[in-house]
Amino acid sequence: KSCQESQVEATYLVLPPDANSLGTIFGGRVMEWIDKVATIVAMRHTQKTCVTVSMDELHFISPVRIGHVVNLKASLNYVHKTSLEIGVKVEAENPLTGQHCHTASAYLTFVCLDEKGKPTAVPPVLPETAIEKRRFKEAEERRKHRLKIREERRHARS
Amino acid sequence: KSCQESQVEATYLVLPPDANSLGTIFGGRVMEWIDKVATIVAMRHTQKTCVTVSMDELHFISPVRIGHVVNLKASLNYVHKTSLEIGVKVEAENPLTGQHCHTASAYLTFVCLDEKGKPTAVPPVLPETAIEKRRFKEAEERRKHRLKIREERRHARS
Amino acid sequence: KSCQESQVEATYLVLPPDANSLGTIFGGRVMEWIDKVATIVAMRHTQKTCVTVSMDELHFISPVRIGHVVNLKASLNYVHKTSLEIGVKVEAENPLTGQHCHTASAYLTFVCLDEKGKPTAVPPVLPETAIEKRRFKEAEERRKHRLKIREERRHARS
Amino acid sequence: KSCQESQVEATYLVLPPDANSLGTIFGGRVMEWIDKVATIVAMRHTQKTCVTVSMDELHFISPVRIGHVVNLKASLNYVHKTSLEIGVKVEAENPLTGQHCHTASAYLTFVCLDEKGKPTAVPPVLPETAIEKRRFKEAEERRKHRLKIREERRHARS
Amino acid sequence: KSCQESQVEATYLVLPPDANSLGTIFGGRVMEWIDKVATIVAMRHTQKTCVTVSMDELHFISPVRIGHVVNLKASLNYVHKTSLEIGVKVEAENPLTGQHCHTASAYLTFVCLDEKGKPTAVPPVLPETAIEKRRFKEAEERRKHRLKIREERRHARS
Amino acid sequence: KSCQESQVEATYLVLPPDANSLGTIFGGRVMEWIDKVATIVAMRHTQKTCVTVSMDELHFISPVRIGHVVNLKASLNYVHKTSLEIGVKVEAENPLTGQHCHTASAYLTFVCLDEKGKPTAVPPVLPETAIEKRRFKEAEERRKHRLKIREERRHARS
Repeated sequence: KSCQESQVEATYLVLPPDANSLGTIFGGRVMEWIDKVATIVAMRHTQKTCVTVSMDELHFISPVRIGHVVNLKASLNYVHKTSLEIGVKVEAENPLTGQHCHTASAYLTFVCLDEKGKPTAVPPVLPETAIEKRRFKEAEERRKHRLKIREERRHARS
Repeated sequence: KSCQESQVEATYLVLPPDANSLGTIFGGRVMEWIDKVATIVAMRHTQKTCVTVSMDELHFISPVRIGHVVNLKASLNYVHKTSLEIGVKVEAENPLTGQHCHTASAYLTFVCLDEKGKPTAVPPVLPETAIEKRRFKEAEERRKHRLKIREERRHARS
Repeated sequence: KSCQESQVEATYLVLPPDANSLGTIFGGRVMEWIDKVATIVAMRHTQKTCVTVSMDELHFISPVRIGHVVNLKASLNYVHKTSLEIGVKVEAENPLTGQHCHTASAYLTFVCLDEKGKPTAVPPVLPETAIEKRRFKEAEERRKHRLKIREERRHARS
Repeated sequence: KSCQESQVEATYLVLPPDANSLGTIFGGRVMEWIDKVATIVAMRHTQKTCVTVSMDELHFISPVRIGHVVNLKASLNYVHKTSLEIGVKVEAENPLTGQHCHTASAYLTFVCLDEKGKPTAVPPVLPETAIEKRRFKEAEERRKHRLKIREERRHARS
Repeated sequence: KSCQESQVEATYLVLPPDANSLGTIFGGRVMEWIDKVATIVAMRHTQKTCVTVSMDELHFISPVRIGHVVNLKASLNYVHKTSLEIGVKVEAENPLTGQHCHTASAYLTFVCLDEKGKPTAVPPVLPETAIEKRRFKEAEERRKHRLKIREERRHARS
Repeated sequence: KSCQESQVEATYLVLPPDANSLGTIFGGRVMEWIDKVATIVAMRHTQKTCVTVSMDELHFISPVRIGHVVNLKASLNYVHKTSLEIGVKVEAENPLTGQHCHTASAYLTFVCLDEKGKPTAVPPVLPETAIEKRRFKEAEERRKHRLKIREERRHARS
């Protein structure tokens, strides 16, 4: 399956309940939105239930204010056996000026579950464009890094 | 300005708090989402604050279930002095089968406000494609119908 | 059954999460409240599950501010086979001055469902007062208009 | 001012987010609704800001299920200098059977604040009917009991 | 079982949706949080489902502002056959000054339910410290007072 | 300042709106709670406003079900100029069995802001126990890794 078939785009208006006392959006709210759009990508690609296993390297580059618009773009980067890596890019837009800026990026891994809640194989993904191929390769490296870190931590504590 | 510049696409996952005891989404929740995406279109086109004046002809064509994905597409149909008409199309998608169906459609009018909260002129919209031109014409007719209905009702009560 | 048996009155306080950055209530929130009170009317009259089929002619006449009180009155206007039309009137009240004003009105249609989710007959409604009789007649005309519009649109697209 | 001028009636539909894993409404949600309707009564009577000082003797008499309707009736019982006592009665209704039952009752006291946030005098209330007069008298006794309890507790800890 | 095993401590940040137009937290929101932490205590002690039966003597001693932190401490005071009394103490903290103050206190009673939803025996609680013993004794007296009040009210209305 | 002064412990009950259609909690909801408790730690230590800059290495180890209790423990690991690293450990508890299990862990970085919203120096933290010292050292390494990754990515794209 192609990366494009499962891509998700979502647009939200930042409202008072999404913001802290500075009038800027909470990190936790952006995380919640990132998790939701990534879940849709995972379900679209696998046509099965998928649950979040990890989120790493979420960076907030600039704050977002009440009244601004948040655009999230999520796409499948990589598939490995029963798991998927999905990248989410978050942009903020001031609708009164038309100005856009990059707000945050995150990589999430999901595991795909069968009807009994057991991990099950994910259909392969076919990266087509140069960007998709780069993302696939970078995701593969992040997967290796994650495994290495987990290994190291297990040693440190044993 | 073109219709395409202000178009909005939004994707939501239907969760338990969005649904009634049948497991299908509440009309009221869909209305809330429709209002939000239409508000973004209005603010993008005018680069000003816009408030909802009316929503008419919202039809629910088929129910949407928990776990399904709702796609909303909103675009500017028509501008008249200080007001705008925006059309929103709602589609539901079952991510486990990939099946899509048309769920609801609605037409909303907004008024554009200046910093003092007074109605202010909206920049004209330039319908380009055949679809945009048809939508512009239909919106013009709906506007006449709305005025006529209001007139009749005023008479009936005076 | 009489119209009065199923009437609903509901009173809400407008809080910060209900409002936009102007401090006035979102159209979408009012729509959500309208849908809920109308659903209660429909369920009370039919003693069955009812789902929203359409909402038309929702007009916002004046804005409502944080700290104000919103009163919704919903009553059954009309029954036709498996469907009902319910009218909702929304008033805002400034509790610090006691001032009331008419905020919005809407007409919603619902379909009544049996246990299997199939449309089922609605018990007839008996309009008693002059107002109830006028509402019944107007609702009948709106129903004809809705059917006509749907018919025209089907033609225009075929 | 009469008790009737400030009375509030509110009707809510119990939805999945309002309920625990038994399918019955949370005590905390009912308390939130009770506090909101009582706040409206206090603001209507005083035409000022009022904040909750205490709630006592809230009893849940019977559980309420998802899909049921909750009716709250709140009215002013008693005024003393800068404070008010408001009684709230909560009834549940199964809309599929029309059956009603008494769910909970509570007494709340509020203090009325001026623009600087200082306690300020509340306009007197005039109980008119026999029920209003009984409520006034009972509230006066509850006020004495509350003062006595506070006194005793202060002693016990000093 | 000891009181300490079932104790709960919870910390919340007060956000704009928790506050009224004065920027101070709603009584209703604090009640909701109190009910939740008390429910956890009841479930931990009984290892069964427990539902709120009453809340009495909730006093708000000082207001809490947006941006402040609310600490709730809940512990089991008393057990009687199928019911439990739980005390909750609410403190507010201004994280910018480190200042704490006592905000509210409440006593809640719960009933413990078996799988069929029928009241079932609660395991006894063993008060150990002097504070726990005082709380046990005070709770026993409150229970008597509650029964007496209910009795008097029944008489007054019969 | 010590690590213990700013530690936060929070306990939440998992309710239906927190869960997906499998009855297990959403990753996005846990992320929101993690962000909130970490924000409280950052504000307590700095006595200033702090905003989330990044969250890395969030791993979900086991799912959490509706009706279970989630305990979050957050503590300050590391301070560097204007930024802080905070570690959050999430445990789930089945209140009906008393069973606990480790659910998720995350590391968040915050930047401390002065009244004008500019980054400002954070008071140093003094790790005291062996665990606090290990956390401090590991956080220092994660900081280096984060900088290295950012550097590499900048190169890859230039």
